Amino acid sequence: MNVDSRWSPSEKKVARRAFDAALEAALGKTMTEFKKKAGDVATPSDMWDIEDYLRQQRRTIDQMFDYRYSQLIVVFATLIREGYLDESQLAGLSEDKREEMRRFLAWHARE
Amino acid sequence: MNVDSRWSPSEKKVARRAFDAALEAALGKTMTEFKKKAGDVATPSDMWDIEDYLRQQRRTIDQMFDYRYSQLIVVFATLIREGYLDESQLAGLSEDKREEMRRFLAWHARE
Repeated sequence: MNVDSRWSPSEKKVARRAFDAALEAALGKTMTEFKKKAGDVATPSDMWDIEDYLRQQRRTIDQMFDYRYSQLIVVFATLIREGYLDESQLAGLSEDKREEMRRFLAWHARE
Repeated sequence: MNVDSRWSPSEKKVARRAFDAALEAALGKTMTEFKKKAGDVATPSDMWDIEDYLRQQRRTIDQMFDYRYSQLIVVFATLIREGYLDESQLAGLSEDKREEMRRFLAWHARE
């Protein structure tokens, strides 16, 4: 069976909603950080640092938010670990998927 | 005679002071603009626009502020045109240099 078909229509709905909420949280957090940093800029060098900060943030967010069903378990686990998602927002996903996510999180927590 | 030797020690002093003052003015203006733009950021897309804006500004300033004696006449004329330098700050340069600058400015004003 292909990866996509492991996800039922109702699971896809849950996944999409959780993904979008986490993306909004990540962007919101970055905007808050950015505003703080921009407000603190006192020298040209501080200002150029913001360019580097934004480039880095954009790259990190682009890499983290990968909506492919083949990646989604690891993506959600990462978003939980980063604080952008709460496990409760994934209620509705099959138990085997949530278990896989927990194993990933437990494995990372050991590091 | 090489280009460098066209500039007397006292002219080099005047040039360096004017150049540094103009650079400070350009960076100050960019910082003010940046702070305004950053304060106005309301969406993630606005925020990523700031990255582009800063990259562009950094490149423009790097290109404009070229302290080579072979370039300095055109550089100063450009800085006057952009409002970062007043001709009076170049008092002490030889009349032929100031004349060359004025010709450059007049030529550009015609465009």
